[in-house]
Amino acid sequence: MKPISILFAAVLGLVAVFSVAQVQGAENGASTVPLSKETKACIDCHSSLNPGLVQDWLASRHAKTTPDAALKKPEAERRMSAQAVPEALRTVAVGCYECHSLNPGVHKDNFVHADYKINVVVSPNDCKTCHTTEADQYGEGKKANALSNLDENPIFHALVNTVSSVKRLKGTQVMSDKPSASTLNETCYGCHGSRVTVKGLVTRATDVGDMQFPELANWPNQGVGRGNPDGSSGACTSCHPRHRFAISVARQPYTCGQCHIDPDVPAWNVYQESKHGNIFFSSNQAYNLDNVPWAAGRDFIAPTCAACHNSLVSNIDGSLVAERNHNFGARPWVRIFGLIYSHPQPRSGKTYLLKNRDGLPLPTTFTGEPASTFLIDREEQAKRQDQMQKICQSCHSGSFIKGHFADFDASVQEADEMVKTATLFLSRAWDMKLADKANPFDEPLEQKWVRQWLFYANSVRFGAAMMGHGQATFREGWWDLTANLAELAERMKTRK
Amino acid sequence: MKPISILFAAVLGLVAVFSVAQVQGAENGASTVPLSKETKACIDCHSSLNPGLVQDWLASRHAKTTPDAALKKPEAERRMSAQAVPEALRTVAVGCYECHSLNPGVHKDNFVHADYKINVVVSPNDCKTCHTTEADQYGEGKKANALSNLDENPIFHALVNTVSSVKRLKGTQVMSDKPSASTLNETCYGCHGSRVTVKGLVTRATDVGDMQFPELANWPNQGVGRGNPDGSSGACTSCHPRHRFAISVARQPYTCGQCHIDPDVPAWNVYQESKHGNIFFSSNQAYNLDNVPWAAGRDFIAPTCAACHNSLVSNIDGSLVAERNHNFGARPWVRIFGLIYSHPQPRSGKTYLLKNRDGLPLPTTFTGEPASTFLIDREEQAKRQDQMQKICQSCHSGSFIKGHFADFDASVQEADEMVKTATLFLSRAWDMKLADKANPFDEPLEQKWVRQWLFYANSVRFGAAMMGHGQATFREGWWDLTANLAELAERMKTRK
Amino acid sequence: MKPISILFAAVLGLVAVFSVAQVQGAENGASTVPLSKETKACIDCHSSLNPGLVQDWLASRHAKTTPDAALKKPEAERRMSAQAVPEALRTVAVGCYECHSLNPGVHKDNFVHADYKINVVVSPNDCKTCHTTEADQYGEGKKANALSNLDENPIFHALVNTVSSVKRLKGTQVMSDKPSASTLNETCYGCHGSRVTVKGLVTRATDVGDMQFPELANWPNQGVGRGNPDGSSGACTSCHPRHRFAISVARQPYTCGQCHIDPDVPAWNVYQESKHGNIFFSSNQAYNLDNVPWAAGRDFIAPTCAACHNSLVSNIDGSLVAERNHNFGARPWVRIFGLIYSHPQPRSGKTYLLKNRDGLPLPTTFTGEPASTFLIDREEQAKRQDQMQKICQSCHSGSFIKGHFADFDASVQEADEMVKTATLFLSRAWDMKLADKANPFDEPLEQKWVRQWLFYANSVRFGAAMMGHGQATFREGWWDLTANLAELAERMKTRK
Repeated sequence: MKPISILFAAVLGLVAVFSVAQVQGAENGASTVPLSKETKACIDCHSSLNPGLVQDWLASRHAKTTPDAALKKPEAERRMSAQAVPEALRTVAVGCYECHSLNPGVHKDNFVHADYKINVVVSPNDCKTCHTTEADQYGEGKKANALSNLDENPIFHALVNTVSSVKRLKGTQVMSDKPSASTLNETCYGCHGSRVTVKGLVTRATDVGDMQFPELANWPNQGVGRGNPDGSSGACTSCHPRHRFAISVARQPYTCGQCHIDPDVPAWNVYQESKHGNIFFSSNQAYNLDNVPWAAGRDFIAPTCAACHNSLVSNIDGSLVAERNHNFGARPWVRIFGLIYSHPQPRSGKTYLLKNRDGLPLPTTFTGEPASTFLIDREEQAKRQDQMQKICQSCHSGSFIKGHFADFDASVQEADEMVKTATLFLSRAWDMKLADKANPFDEPLEQKWVRQWLFYANSVRFGAAMMGHGQATFREGWWDLTANLAELAERMKTRK
Repeated sequence: MKPISILFAAVLGLVAVFSVAQVQGAENGASTVPLSKETKACIDCHSSLNPGLVQDWLASRHAKTTPDAALKKPEAERRMSAQAVPEALRTVAVGCYECHSLNPGVHKDNFVHADYKINVVVSPNDCKTCHTTEADQYGEGKKANALSNLDENPIFHALVNTVSSVKRLKGTQVMSDKPSASTLNETCYGCHGSRVTVKGLVTRATDVGDMQFPELANWPNQGVGRGNPDGSSGACTSCHPRHRFAISVARQPYTCGQCHIDPDVPAWNVYQESKHGNIFFSSNQAYNLDNVPWAAGRDFIAPTCAACHNSLVSNIDGSLVAERNHNFGARPWVRIFGLIYSHPQPRSGKTYLLKNRDGLPLPTTFTGEPASTFLIDREEQAKRQDQMQKICQSCHSGSFIKGHFADFDASVQEADEMVKTATLFLSRAWDMKLADKANPFDEPLEQKWVRQWLFYANSVRFGAAMMGHGQATFREGWWDLTANLAELAERMKTRK
Repeated sequence: MKPISILFAAVLGLVAVFSVAQVQGAENGASTVPLSKETKACIDCHSSLNPGLVQDWLASRHAKTTPDAALKKPEAERRMSAQAVPEALRTVAVGCYECHSLNPGVHKDNFVHADYKINVVVSPNDCKTCHTTEADQYGEGKKANALSNLDENPIFHALVNTVSSVKRLKGTQVMSDKPSASTLNETCYGCHGSRVTVKGLVTRATDVGDMQFPELANWPNQGVGRGNPDGSSGACTSCHPRHRFAISVARQPYTCGQCHIDPDVPAWNVYQESKHGNIFFSSNQAYNLDNVPWAAGRDFIAPTCAACHNSLVSNIDGSLVAERNHNFGARPWVRIFGLIYSHPQPRSGKTYLLKNRDGLPLPTTFTGEPASTFLIDREEQAKRQDQMQKICQSCHSGSFIKGHFADFDASVQEADEMVKTATLFLSRAWDMKLADKANPFDEPLEQKWVRQWLFYANSVRFGAAMMGHGQATFREGWWDLTANLAELAERMKTRK
């Protein structure tokens, strides 16, 4: 920890002297980066109002460089993809005002604040000013559409409503309320993103007197598919948190583990018990988590989630292994987050547009037949497998990779088969009136079926993908797939 | 890791030459701190008998400073709150003898050991000699009373007995033994604390021949409410472990995670998947975990449990954000560890003194009505909310904080509502003789009800408090609150 | 992270100039270690084909020393136990060829590759060339026999088959397939080890044209009891992963946590919430994880799994605390991984040779009577307890240790008692034809019984061993032992 407090005190002193404030980089005492006069004004107040926030930014790359300087880097080392930025942004640090004032015309959360027009929320469309390619890729993927993919899909919407609603006893009947915005924000929409809207202006007492602020609904929220007050979707802070935006945070598995955690998406759990995880957790003090491009063997030993799923990965000689891609659905060929079955990755990130043979907005039918026209074809799947194998090849031989991929494929198919058996049981239960299919998620038999695909089959699929054997066996995998079927069978016998 | 072994070897050599031993600080080869002759004698033997223990102490601040030196620090940087200490302690390191010999008159575990009168157990009352305020605050809280709060409350006592007792099959009946002291020590009392008593003296063979030692019952134990042989309650080593007592350990979430872990107190799990946790785990190599006061933005980025719940937190300019408080119930306004419902924090740490409207020692009635006279009032709640928001404000804006607190409040209330529905089911089950309320914890229907509040509602409450969305949704939260109710409803229908 | 890429580029340059390649140690720029010409040839191609793999090896001790140099170290500091190695290995780095060419006569996976005869798989029998004692000890233990211990034991084999097989609905019956090799490899055999066999030769397109490779069945696999193509058993890479073989990785709990994780072997979970775990996770940046011997108090504070279970542990003065032992069953006296009950450690690592009084291959009878002739006797148990207590004594006093061991013993016995009660229920259920004992693992009542010993009793046993109180209480311990019995009792009443 550098004594950045001293540097910061110096900054506050200097801004009174020079017309353009200078920020000294925390890691490089020699470099100086000018601040815009607006950002200087922000810092003048907020350094005492929200000192941790300001310090966080001061430690960020945004505080230590300018777009012009960033554009002078060799292309492979660049973290910004825009070829040019508006004149006003070029030669100043990427400060408070530079981000919180963009595109005011579309920002319904824009308000006059101490004589400046400020947006409360910074959106991917704002970040796009410098990070064009990343914002575009992100927008095409499932993450940016994660809210719509719940809301616009009546089946998933029913699941959300069933799970997150308060149930009250009326006589002998359990009645469900509509889920509240608060609970949705703290459950499904916490990861998927909420729709942030402006309710009006509100006056609040602050440390510097009464001030007016926009009153936002469904805020705060950093879900990946957040609906922003400027009409855009997504939240870059999901993975690049707060005001430091550190690539070194986004590259660590803790970031993905915020949402991709058991029982429904046990990627975190599987990674933790995998060989990759073992090496990462045992050795990450030797990783260079900040380098761009990210070289296997030099900057990291075992990969983290980001290495295989989206980072720009190179060899140590600088040759390309995999291009950076912020559409997280672009590298994998199969979607193992089973809904209800595994299936080829959808062509579009808007999964609510899927339609299976039965006319339902699902990637497969109830018995597993894929909605192929909406999913990538065999050629594209093969291309992506090849690409992923190229990443594996950095550290593994061909026979290792081929063997692993074959085991993975077989495991995923068998997990699907175990789901199908449960589904056939459930169909029979519906036929026998042991359960009511009107809502397929609200009765014990149905909930056992949901666990079969959402928890247990997913554990097997993710476990096989990354060699997390405990998760695939006794934790929530084959043991539960098996025991749950036995329970289903017994319940149907008992109830018949 | 410094070669402190060499330093230590030097110490052992020096003590033969000088009348007062000198300990060289592991981190500062230059400084020297005198040891008392008694502590020197301890080290003479124990450095070879228990070398890890002695090394642990040598690396501690206690080995590298004296109370007199500590008292010369500016008040905000002090780690000791006593204004003066007994003469004998003033100018020597805080060594073995200084701690293990205090208050011998009240220590039933005091014994003559190699010509010195030694206490086996060091208690909060002993630590109080230098850490007066901390010991007093701790004594007022629920932690110091954690053993009594189980033992003196017949309802919780029944839960402990039901859970931890061996059950044997007698004919077709399951009969329960009384829980053994060993199992209590390894389960409930492991965290809550055991009652350590002296059974007598025992002779044991040691590396230096037969010696007499006190034989202690329910030892070892580091539970937070341990009953000590000097009549005091608590164990500072719960959070400041072993002989290093490092503040840097106590401030990390691993310490709290020893007890506050799922399924009953899922604070650890929620923190781990929260944004705060993500930043901590990804960035803690950049934290200064040892600084006092602890400055947001300089010493830590995202807070750990300690930052919000008890540490002395300042801004980087030294201005106070929150005072240190070792009564862990003093900062929160609401108690989300639901028993059975959430409720305002109790006024006293002795929760066995609570009495609800039905005369039961619970903070609410069975249907959720708070035992208000025993709980903090609205004014105190508001005051504490304001204080907590001040901590949040170090890094977050007002609208962020307001929005989060509103979501949290709503989530807690809804979780309570889900508990109430289960409670109404159970009441009906008791009325219908589907279960016997004599022991409300020992039948499957009742155990489902316990899981509803102790596991699932707690997951929602803790999840909402710290934005741990997975825990609040599918891990042990809303999904289980909902499915458990459906199971309860079905069982009652089937059994009717 | 050192710029080893530069060093490596230098290596590739140098090999063209000198007849013997020189590797510069990544941590010691001055030292040079010659490479064999065969290893040089491997690196010539593989440094661009699998750069991460080669970098991993370059960072290893194997790349920075020679057997001759290693043998000059004082015996206590040696990491190789052979007193001499074949002439060809003595003065070169332990490179690709040195390991992948050993014992070609017995390696069915040996093939001609770019003019060299290469083994795909390196086995413990190959590592034994330098690490003789370790390979011998490992071979005697349960780990090396972990595959046979499943396969050759009809009872465990039935459990494996029941859990890992695809179930299909035929009419109203659930029919089981035979488990597939892929799923076994990703579940049970992932940890226990698969039987790697050579199916023939296959031609594969590579970056340098078509080449022939052995086609291996059940590969890749790093399970501890892997059956290797040379007839040996085990995989050193289970704990010393990939091409770095770092002792610093093997010593960290993440390594053991790959397999020893809840719900069946919750050692990882218990360690994580224990005091030992708290100190390790909070302080491991101060550990020297690489030193040999490993000194308590100097190199580590709280122990990791390895410190108590197999590492060479010394005091800081170099005196021996515990000898290194790669038979992981050699230090513990009791086996708490209950099958079905705890029992003294078996004499042999081949547990399929056990026979209980009823003639079954189990360490105890169904009611808990130990198969004593196959298990270590009281004298050996006492000897091992004394040895383990010597490790504890590095940091703990005698009364602490005695008390803890007594609590542990009692907890294990009580967990066994809770298993026995469930077993008596199951016996009665079989007698009453409520379940069919032909397969004791495939019906809901039986699966509840399995959970009682495999999940819940194990949680209590491991929890008590390492003071993981949450695991022993509410996570999967006493609460579940108790609730599961109540469910068993109720089901039997309902079904009667």
